[in-house]
Amino acid sequence: MSQDITEALRASLGDSLLTDPADCHTYGYDNSKLQGQPMAVALPTTHEQVVAVVRACYEHDTPLLARGQGTGTTGATVPLDRQSVIISMHRMNRLIELDRDNRLVVVEPGITNQQVQQTAAGQGFFWPPDPTSAAVCTVGGNLAYNSAGPRAVKYGTPRENTLGLCIVTGDGRTLRTGVRTTKGVVGYDLTRLMIGSEGTLGIITEATLKLTPLQPAKRTLRAEYRDMHSAAKAVANIMASPVTPCALEFMDGNAIDMVRDELAGRLASDTGALLIIEVDGLASQIDELAEQVSDSAKTTGCLAVHQASNEAEVAALWDVRKALSPALRRVAPKKINEDVVVPVSCIPVLVDRLSEFSKTHGIHIVNFGHAGNGNLHVNLLYNPDDAGQQKRAEACLEDVFSTVLELGGTLSGEHGIGLVKRDWVAKEIGPDSLQLMHAIKRQFDPKGILNPGKALPPID
Amino acid sequence: MSQDITEALRASLGDSLLTDPADCHTYGYDNSKLQGQPMAVALPTTHEQVVAVVRACYEHDTPLLARGQGTGTTGATVPLDRQSVIISMHRMNRLIELDRDNRLVVVEPGITNQQVQQTAAGQGFFWPPDPTSAAVCTVGGNLAYNSAGPRAVKYGTPRENTLGLCIVTGDGRTLRTGVRTTKGVVGYDLTRLMIGSEGTLGIITEATLKLTPLQPAKRTLRAEYRDMHSAAKAVANIMASPVTPCALEFMDGNAIDMVRDELAGRLASDTGALLIIEVDGLASQIDELAEQVSDSAKTTGCLAVHQASNEAEVAALWDVRKALSPALRRVAPKKINEDVVVPVSCIPVLVDRLSEFSKTHGIHIVNFGHAGNGNLHVNLLYNPDDAGQQKRAEACLEDVFSTVLELGGTLSGEHGIGLVKRDWVAKEIGPDSLQLMHAIKRQFDPKGILNPGKALPPID
Repeated sequence: MSQDITEALRASLGDSLLTDPADCHTYGYDNSKLQGQPMAVALPTTHEQVVAVVRACYEHDTPLLARGQGTGTTGATVPLDRQSVIISMHRMNRLIELDRDNRLVVVEPGITNQQVQQTAAGQGFFWPPDPTSAAVCTVGGNLAYNSAGPRAVKYGTPRENTLGLCIVTGDGRTLRTGVRTTKGVVGYDLTRLMIGSEGTLGIITEATLKLTPLQPAKRTLRAEYRDMHSAAKAVANIMASPVTPCALEFMDGNAIDMVRDELAGRLASDTGALLIIEVDGLASQIDELAEQVSDSAKTTGCLAVHQASNEAEVAALWDVRKALSPALRRVAPKKINEDVVVPVSCIPVLVDRLSEFSKTHGIHIVNFGHAGNGNLHVNLLYNPDDAGQQKRAEACLEDVFSTVLELGGTLSGEHGIGLVKRDWVAKEIGPDSLQLMHAIKRQFDPKGILNPGKALPPID
Repeated sequence: MSQDITEALRASLGDSLLTDPADCHTYGYDNSKLQGQPMAVALPTTHEQVVAVVRACYEHDTPLLARGQGTGTTGATVPLDRQSVIISMHRMNRLIELDRDNRLVVVEPGITNQQVQQTAAGQGFFWPPDPTSAAVCTVGGNLAYNSAGPRAVKYGTPRENTLGLCIVTGDGRTLRTGVRTTKGVVGYDLTRLMIGSEGTLGIITEATLKLTPLQPAKRTLRAEYRDMHSAAKAVANIMASPVTPCALEFMDGNAIDMVRDELAGRLASDTGALLIIEVDGLASQIDELAEQVSDSAKTTGCLAVHQASNEAEVAALWDVRKALSPALRRVAPKKINEDVVVPVSCIPVLVDRLSEFSKTHGIHIVNFGHAGNGNLHVNLLYNPDDAGQQKRAEACLEDVFSTVLELGGTLSGEHGIGLVKRDWVAKEIGPDSLQLMHAIKRQFDPKGILNPGKALPPID
């Protein structure tokens, strides 16, 4: 069988098909550290080749997984079956059209987020989604996970910033979804259904992205708080005020402790939580906007608000946040990094509970993330090679997820589900909804060949 | 059969079921002027009653149409079959919760848009969708059609401003879709799939709406242009600049002519197009924001930009626009009002083509609408009781729709499809997409009882 499918793929792809196990190996992992071995890797450069690949896989009942640059953290692009074909979209990386007057850009999915930003900036625009991995991650991947980043607090996620898609379904049909305009209500919204579906419904071959004008000025502030309770009050206060920040990031006390040395006394010693806040606007107005947001940030328990007045000071304010990831990796290279979301007002409750769980399970937990969206990156620092620690971390994670759901939150804000959170989905989504989602998938992908076993838990 | 279903409905609804033909008659129309006669009208007050109504209709294979206040313009709530049951949601009109810290409001679908705005305003917020009928139209209707209004140009449509829904599917399952947070990527996006589906997938019994902080100040401007070409250049220019207006409305030359007398010389005589522009922001900054947008509006062909400096002047600027609808109704009470959308840069091409069609078909056409979204309300003024005129109007509409699609536009921006545009949908959406949409509908509504024959054209 693997001979047949390989020949079918070769016929449309020629040299753009990898079958040597060593070549294939490098396409079988993502940033979850999970690894699988695909049978073949397709490297299409055209929509027609994608159609041919899907049809060949459909014909031969072969699992097909689309991937970009492998920056995902959930194993969504890791093959579970050694008969799988990976379709790597990184060669379909053209920017097809930038239409200033209609504020849109048409791209292929393999283009990096950064390339889009650079080209758009040349015309005075940006595309709001800005994951930390923007320099290397692809737009296709951003759409697959609905990946956002700090700017989502003001400008939204891919679902709010994508006008239309061209996709290939699991049986090789080509569909154009959505519109080229910012309004449209003809037929059902298949564009948003595709976004966040992790390659389980179709393979995106083109995307029409909505652009937003760049603001001429930005100001960065760091607000320090006694504890997360006072920081969360400030977040709610800021979000209820007319000046919506374009970033509203937080770090809890444990996160601050990780980098306290590197901050060389720049933080007050009793700082138990901090916010990094950015506002954007017209250059002539940015002082007042920063002043307003600074006022909103000064709730009870606020120890200090620092404002950067030049580029070097901006860099210094972000240093705290940027020093964190390397520090975490030094302590625990195989840490679990979750990206749960809770209503903003529940952030302090969650952080308190996480502190309890940390004690109960003996796992060090460090939290930071996108406060304005209630999106917490919960980092469990442990050594998975220690069986005891591994078991305690799993039990701890179970408590974390249960608490998130109890607080009316959701298991993932921007990383997606993939493999690693898949078995948790049924705790958030009821059995009827889950069955309906599977039924919808079957309409797109009748044989279930597209990224099987990901995103949704299997049902009976 | 009608006896059986009536008894089943009576069992759960008691007095909240209307069966007298005269009572039912008033629930069989909408603002399309179409009218049908339902067999019964259910007036539920609880989610459980909605479930009971759906189950009874499912059991008895009876068409079921949800409606709000009947302000829709497409016949989407008009029964096609005399055995239909109407479920009128207007008694489910509670505001369940307003959560300031999490910027959301939970409502039942029968609440009016205005009630939501009033309650939200008390806490310093608004819900962006603002159809002209806001005073009477329901949130459920806004969600069913993805109805927006002028503010969408800055703040988006219901799809960008709804976090989650509670729905009842066509076989009586209750599903909770979405989240209570502004990020979330667990499972497929059923919330947006529901929005704009015109009651064909499920009946909404509760909606969690995302609120936005009110801006303290607003400024209104009227910009006059020689023709639509120069006005459209200004629109593109404004939309590419950092200050995005919160309304960007236009009127073409014919629209201006309709109200020129009432303007008593306030417009320059050679004004061939005008824009009404609103900006919002901090009170201390609004002058500069208005100045910036005014600068962006001053493209070649701009004759004048007037800025209101007080409430009376704001009213005077809007008078032009508001005088239009009554004037149109006086001339042609049964006019066709379309709401096509084209890319902003194509507005002048469309307006020119409309002018040609007007001559070819002998039908007077007046255009106004939401320029920032490319959303044109194309009004065909004619007398449908005159068979010749009716035929010419239909032929004209055919040309209008073909042109819109040729320009990369869409048939509806905010009115939806209902019955009146249904047979046009297949020209915009390819057969594969249409089949997939029908297949998706079957997963929500296996017997096809929910608003049959609406929104999507039938397929073989």
